[in-house]
Amino acid sequence: MARIFNFSAGPAVMPEQVLVQARDEMLDWHGSGMSVMEMSHRGKEFISIAASAEADLRALLAIPANYKVLFMQGGAQAQFALVPMNLLGSATTADYVDTGQWSKKAIQEAKRYCTPAVAASSEKERHTRVPDRAQWRLNPNAAYVHYTSNETIGGVEFHWIPDTGSVPLVCDMSSDILSRPLDVSRFGLIYAGAQKNIGPAGLTVVIVRDDLLGRAMPATPAVFDYKAQAEAESMLNTPPTYAMYLAGLTFKWLQGQGGLAAIERRNIEKAALVYELLDQTEFYRCPVRREDRSRMNIAFTLRDAALDEPFLKEAKQQGLAELKGHRSVGGMRASIYNAMPLAGVKALVDFMREFERRHG
Amino acid sequence: MARIFNFSAGPAVMPEQVLVQARDEMLDWHGSGMSVMEMSHRGKEFISIAASAEADLRALLAIPANYKVLFMQGGAQAQFALVPMNLLGSATTADYVDTGQWSKKAIQEAKRYCTPAVAASSEKERHTRVPDRAQWRLNPNAAYVHYTSNETIGGVEFHWIPDTGSVPLVCDMSSDILSRPLDVSRFGLIYAGAQKNIGPAGLTVVIVRDDLLGRAMPATPAVFDYKAQAEAESMLNTPPTYAMYLAGLTFKWLQGQGGLAAIERRNIEKAALVYELLDQTEFYRCPVRREDRSRMNIAFTLRDAALDEPFLKEAKQQGLAELKGHRSVGGMRASIYNAMPLAGVKALVDFMREFERRHG
Repeated sequence: MARIFNFSAGPAVMPEQVLVQARDEMLDWHGSGMSVMEMSHRGKEFISIAASAEADLRALLAIPANYKVLFMQGGAQAQFALVPMNLLGSATTADYVDTGQWSKKAIQEAKRYCTPAVAASSEKERHTRVPDRAQWRLNPNAAYVHYTSNETIGGVEFHWIPDTGSVPLVCDMSSDILSRPLDVSRFGLIYAGAQKNIGPAGLTVVIVRDDLLGRAMPATPAVFDYKAQAEAESMLNTPPTYAMYLAGLTFKWLQGQGGLAAIERRNIEKAALVYELLDQTEFYRCPVRREDRSRMNIAFTLRDAALDEPFLKEAKQQGLAELKGHRSVGGMRASIYNAMPLAGVKALVDFMREFERRHG
Repeated sequence: MARIFNFSAGPAVMPEQVLVQARDEMLDWHGSGMSVMEMSHRGKEFISIAASAEADLRALLAIPANYKVLFMQGGAQAQFALVPMNLLGSATTADYVDTGQWSKKAIQEAKRYCTPAVAASSEKERHTRVPDRAQWRLNPNAAYVHYTSNETIGGVEFHWIPDTGSVPLVCDMSSDILSRPLDVSRFGLIYAGAQKNIGPAGLTVVIVRDDLLGRAMPATPAVFDYKAQAEAESMLNTPPTYAMYLAGLTFKWLQGQGGLAAIERRNIEKAALVYELLDQTEFYRCPVRREDRSRMNIAFTLRDAALDEPFLKEAKQQGLAELKGHRSVGGMRASIYNAMPLAGVKALVDFMREFERRHG
């Protein structure tokens, strides 16, 4: 079968060019006679791969020198615990912004370590928007302010960076990191599971400002202590080497696409194609407030839910896969991360128009 | 360049057949039109891959039905913390057997959560042997007894399973799991980082007896709670999907090799070739007591340490790589896991004999 257009929310489509290179290098990386996954993480070959990956990520995001980049394991959900374990210090609370299921999970997990406060929430609006900054009630004694820049399930995205004054801003950027240029200096800490815009599942990227290191509570496992990993350059234990290699290839691919400003233009174009269709018809509907709509995950419903199954079945037949909405909300979801080509989005929009003509 | 013989201690050589299959399926797994690393972990394709991997591992190790198999992240070093976090319950101590650097690290990390006791140690013998069972001083009130079945750095391996009565036996089996048949019912919990005999780094396998679940301390992150992961079939969060796929291919390869009894015969044969040479000469020396020598990691020294560099250089030139001993102990180390072919071991032994002829 030919390659399909895969709209999975994550693990998700990867750049075909990255997969082709990984395939070609599978048995022998650069004449080393080894696959990357067979290399000692302390050997010169892998050290060079890890160094390139970090350097390219730093260049793409223009990460300031006073920030450490950590390659960790456990995914964003592990960070839901590791952020409070590492950052609370002597504080007993942290502020959280609730914009959907992922921020809720982060809040839930933080309760193991402190009394988190919900500084703002869009729950009353069924998480169809981001709470306006004027409504946030921030505590100056909070250890940090946590938010989720893109809610993968609800399809709600921040298109602005909150100002939290001197309280460090912490962001779960799992599903929109690298989708646009970013002012890293506005953040205390950014974390992201790899399996949307970075690479395969099993790798977590943490970008943390130097001054926040060294506050871990004693119960923090050594391999999950940001300071210990920063000092060991993410090699306190064996890192997920093959996933780091694929992340590095993805960073090179992003550079080849023109970097994050160019990727952002493409992402805006791709998302606009779908949202324009959704707004032109009553047959489909997007519940999310216009200014907070995600460029990465487009959640929508069909007016007649009885058509959901035929929609998914016919889409699949046309090579458009994984369009079913998250099991908790139903409806449809098209995840169109960096690696989803414009052709895939056009094919989706064409299918949706044609499906409406036949069933509308 | 052709494939080399890679004696790395881990990440380590993988079966070439596994790499070839992974290469061939990189862009399209079984006509799905997706790479395995692009698949939703909740989609039917990946669910089938995960189920096969678990079923094959269960078959290989004859894992009893009252044991759960968990696919986790963080490596064995994360387990150094997660074992006490999950198993201590109301106990305040656990017994540890010290046979080298890895067991020492496990003890060190356990101190975050309890007062671990060293029930036996071979430190006085510079970790060149396993402490005889008669010397162990076990505490009946310990939460568990922890040991390291194979010390990757020292090259010391248990060729017997300790009897600890009613106290659960916990084993770090990272570097010799799947190298021989195993009576899993003797253990409370077994854990292993994947990067020696299972697959790529970034995956950790935990095999745990049902009755030990549900004791996690409140500070345990949800994704590292054995019970929570057991109930979610290792999908409480996104698992390291591609590493699980490669582990599954490795399990199939092991079955094709005739299973663990056949692999054990090959491992005995491979190790004997090297140890016989080491014992025939004064030019090389193995410090480990005969009955405790590892089949997986063969540590040895050259009589004249000034020859270390020429040895490594000439070996490399002949396609024999990663023979340098761990930085903490020096000397040489040949790691000959399941995937190291007999031809590789023969090439090593031939080189060693020839090197001795020229320099002895």
